[in-house]
Amino acid sequence: MSKKTPLDRRTFIQTTAMASASLAVPSTQIQANTILSKKPNTNLRVAVFGSGLRGQSHIDLALRREDCEVVAVAEVDAHMIERTKKLYSKHNKSLPTFYDQGERDYRRLLEKEDIDAVIIATPWRWHTEMAVASMNAGKYCGVEVCGAFSMEECWQMVDTHEKTGTHLFFLENVCYRRDVMAVLNMVRQNLFGELMHLECGYQHDLRGVKFNDGSTAYNSGVEFGEKGFSEAKWRTWHSVHRNGDLYPTHGIGPVAQYIDINRGNRFMYLTSMATKSRGLHNYIVEHEKGGEDHPNAEVEFKLGDKVTTMIKTANEETIVIHHDTNLPRPYSLGFRVQGTKGLWMDVNKSLYIEGTSPSHQWEQAEDYLKKYDHPLWKKHEQKAVGAGHGGMDYFLLNAFIECAKQNIEAPFDVYDAATWMAITPLSEQSISMGGQPMAFPDFTRGRWMKRKNTFALNDKY
Amino acid sequence: MSKKTPLDRRTFIQTTAMASASLAVPSTQIQANTILSKKPNTNLRVAVFGSGLRGQSHIDLALRREDCEVVAVAEVDAHMIERTKKLYSKHNKSLPTFYDQGERDYRRLLEKEDIDAVIIATPWRWHTEMAVASMNAGKYCGVEVCGAFSMEECWQMVDTHEKTGTHLFFLENVCYRRDVMAVLNMVRQNLFGELMHLECGYQHDLRGVKFNDGSTAYNSGVEFGEKGFSEAKWRTWHSVHRNGDLYPTHGIGPVAQYIDINRGNRFMYLTSMATKSRGLHNYIVEHEKGGEDHPNAEVEFKLGDKVTTMIKTANEETIVIHHDTNLPRPYSLGFRVQGTKGLWMDVNKSLYIEGTSPSHQWEQAEDYLKKYDHPLWKKHEQKAVGAGHGGMDYFLLNAFIECAKQNIEAPFDVYDAATWMAITPLSEQSISMGGQPMAFPDFTRGRWMKRKNTFALNDKY
Repeated sequence: MSKKTPLDRRTFIQTTAMASASLAVPSTQIQANTILSKKPNTNLRVAVFGSGLRGQSHIDLALRREDCEVVAVAEVDAHMIERTKKLYSKHNKSLPTFYDQGERDYRRLLEKEDIDAVIIATPWRWHTEMAVASMNAGKYCGVEVCGAFSMEECWQMVDTHEKTGTHLFFLENVCYRRDVMAVLNMVRQNLFGELMHLECGYQHDLRGVKFNDGSTAYNSGVEFGEKGFSEAKWRTWHSVHRNGDLYPTHGIGPVAQYIDINRGNRFMYLTSMATKSRGLHNYIVEHEKGGEDHPNAEVEFKLGDKVTTMIKTANEETIVIHHDTNLPRPYSLGFRVQGTKGLWMDVNKSLYIEGTSPSHQWEQAEDYLKKYDHPLWKKHEQKAVGAGHGGMDYFLLNAFIECAKQNIEAPFDVYDAATWMAITPLSEQSISMGGQPMAFPDFTRGRWMKRKNTFALNDKY
Repeated sequence: MSKKTPLDRRTFIQTTAMASASLAVPSTQIQANTILSKKPNTNLRVAVFGSGLRGQSHIDLALRREDCEVVAVAEVDAHMIERTKKLYSKHNKSLPTFYDQGERDYRRLLEKEDIDAVIIATPWRWHTEMAVASMNAGKYCGVEVCGAFSMEECWQMVDTHEKTGTHLFFLENVCYRRDVMAVLNMVRQNLFGELMHLECGYQHDLRGVKFNDGSTAYNSGVEFGEKGFSEAKWRTWHSVHRNGDLYPTHGIGPVAQYIDINRGNRFMYLTSMATKSRGLHNYIVEHEKGGEDHPNAEVEFKLGDKVTTMIKTANEETIVIHHDTNLPRPYSLGFRVQGTKGLWMDVNKSLYIEGTSPSHQWEQAEDYLKKYDHPLWKKHEQKAVGAGHGGMDYFLLNAFIECAKQNIEAPFDVYDAATWMAITPLSEQSISMGGQPMAFPDFTRGRWMKRKNTFALNDKY
C-alpha cells in the first residue's frame, strides 16, 4: 500500500510550494509572492461583485472574520443592495461602498478602491469578463462556479493570469463537502487502489429555482427572465437556449482532486448526449400559477432534461458526469469512485473494499467516512456550523481568504477553472454534432506533467 | 395519466398478434404459423447445443416439464456429458442422443434428429453459426445471450430468419427478474411518466469465473484457456483480446422493454470509452496460486476494467450501459429508469414518484415492487422456486417452450438479438476510434415503426 498520506505530503508542499507556484507566474512575480507569503496580509481588503443570494452568503461569512473586510460591493439590484446592508447591520460592521451605476460599474470599483481581492458571484455571463478585469487590475480573484460559453474565454482567463501573474481561485465548494473530503483522504491512503472509473454530476431538481413568482426565490411560480427573481432572472435563459452540461463543476471539482487533473493527469476528450426536453414545459403547464394558456407555455426549452457526458483521461480513467436539473428527483451529486481495490458510491451511501468488506457485499459508508474524516474537518468543524451547504462554504471562503492573504496559488486555480468550465461548451458541441468526441486543450501548456496537487494536504485550510 | 396497463394491452395483442407476427415472416409462412398457433404442440422435441453449466441448467428445467423432451444434446466435453446424464437420472428420464464427434457434430444432429426446437448454450463463438444452421433447418431457435463479433453476423441472423421464416428467441433471462418486471409494470402504468434516461449494465466481479484451477468452476485458481474449466476455458480469451462491452444484454434487454426498442423506437448511435486494464493481471499476481512468476502474469489483457457506453434513441432517450467485470465489487446491474414523473434506481433500492413520495426524498422501492408485482410472477411464483438466478430462469425457459410450441414470434426476437448483440462490436469500434459515435443499423428495415411490444402483456408466459 502506498504511504501517500496527507501528513507525508505536508513536508513536500512546504518545501516545494514556492517552486510550484513559480511555474505558473512570470519570474518578475516570484519575489513579490515569496515576500508576501512570508508576511501574510492580516487585514485582507475584499470587494464582492454581485451581492445576490450567493454573494450575500460569502459576505455573511466574511463579516464574521477578523482578518478581512468587505469594503466594496458591485451590485445593480436595489433590493439585493438592501439585503446586503442588513448583513452589515447584523455583524455591526460599517457599510461598504456600493457600485450600482450599471452592470460595468465594477470597473470603476477596480480603479478607485484599495482592495487586495475580489469575489465574483454575478450571473454566469459576467464571470470571465470580471475575472479578466480583476486579474488585470492585480487583484487576487475568486470566481464562483459556472460553465464557460466558449473555449476562447477559458484561454482568456489563462492568458490573463500568465500575463499578470495574478492568481485566480475557482470557488468550487463541493470539494470541501465532508464525505467528499473523507473519500479524498481514503483515495490518498490507497483504500481504493489505482483509480479506474469515476462518476459525478449535478442532479438537482431546479424547476422551483428556474421559475418563481418574481419575489420569492424558490417554488413560488412559473415566471423567469424579467418577471423572475434571483436565479430565475438569468439562469433560466440558459435552459431556453443551450443544450449541454451547463453546470459541471460541483461534480468534476471533487473528481479532479481524486485523480489529480492538471497535476499529473488531464482530460483528453469527452462525448455528450442529451435527452429530449419535457420537464420545464411540463412544470409551467402543470403549476397552479401556470397552465396551457400561460405565456411561458409557449417557450421551447433547448436544454435536454438529462445530459450525460463521458470523459477519458490521460491516465486512462473514465468519468461519467450527470446533469439532471429539469425533472422531479431527490438531490444527488451521484459520486462513484472506483479503483482496483474497491469503490464508493454516494447514492447508496455504501462502499466496498476488497479484503475488508464482506465478500461481494456493500458496506454502509458511514463508519469509513468517520474514520477517514479529513483533518481539516476534524479541526475546524465548529467554525463551519451554520455556514452554507452543510458547512462546506465556510471551508471554501476560509481557503480563499487564507490563500489571498498569502497571495499564493489556489488549490483550484485558473487552469482548473478553464478545464472544468470547458466541459460546458465541449458538451454543447458534442451533443450538437451527434455525440462526436471533443478534445480538451491542454490549458497548462504541458505543465500538468510536473504540477502537484496542493488541495487539502493538511489541516490548515 | 395513460391507461396503458397490461390488461388493456391484452385485448390488443389477442387481436393483432397474428398480423404482427406476419410482418416478420415471408407470406408463405403465415398460414403454417396460424395453423400451428391454433393447435399448440403438446410434446415439444428439443435439442440442446452445449450442455456446459448453462445448458445443464436449461435441461434441468426442461426435464421437469410434461410438455417437452430434450431428445438430443451436442456437447464435446466428456465431463459435461457425464454431468448431463446425471440430470436425466435425477428426473428419471431416458437419456438423449449425444453428438460428441467434434465441434460441428451439431450439424449431424440437425440432419438426423426429429426435433422442433433448439437451445444454443455453447461458448459465444458458436452462437451465430449454430443459430443460422438451426433456422435453416427449420428449427425454432433459442439462443443464449452474448455480444456479437461483427455487424455482419447480426445481419446474417436477420437474413436467415427472413429467408426461412423460422423464429429466433433470444434467451435474455434478466427481462424476467422480479423487480425488473414490476418496474415494467410501473412503466406501462405511467408511474414514471414519459421515459427520459435509463441506465443498466453488467457489473459483476468475474475474476473468480475467468480464472479457476481447471476443475472447480469458481474462485479456485488463476488458470484459463486450455488449463481452465467451464467459462474460464473460453470466455477469458475475450478479455485478453477484445476491448468493448462484451456482455451488454443483461442490462439492455430490460431497458429495451421499457422503451420499446424495435417496437416504436430504436437505437440510433452509441459512444464508448474504456479504462486501462489492471484487474485481471492483479488478480493473477496477488492470488495464492498465482504470483509474479506464474506464466499468466505475462498475459496482457486488452479489456478495460470498466467500459461505459452511451446510447441515443430515436425517441430521444439516453442510455448508459456499464460493463465492469474485472474489479472487486458487489454484483449490480445498475438499473435506473427515469421519466418526467420520477425514477427508480436499483443500487439504492429506491424510487421517487412526484406527488407520491415525500418531496425531494427517496422512498424504499420495496413496497412499490410488491404493489406492482407483475401478474406473471404473481401467478407462477411457486413454479419458479429453485430455478436459476432467483427464479427468472424458470420464466425464461417457460416462455421459450410456450412460444416454440405455438411456433410464434418470440418477445425477444431475431431483430432484438441482432440489435442488442451489435452493442459489442460497435462499442469496440468506438473505443478503438477514440470515442467516435457509431450508428446502429436498422435491422428491422423500417418495421420498428409499426411493430408492437409483445413481452409479458399478461400472466401467461
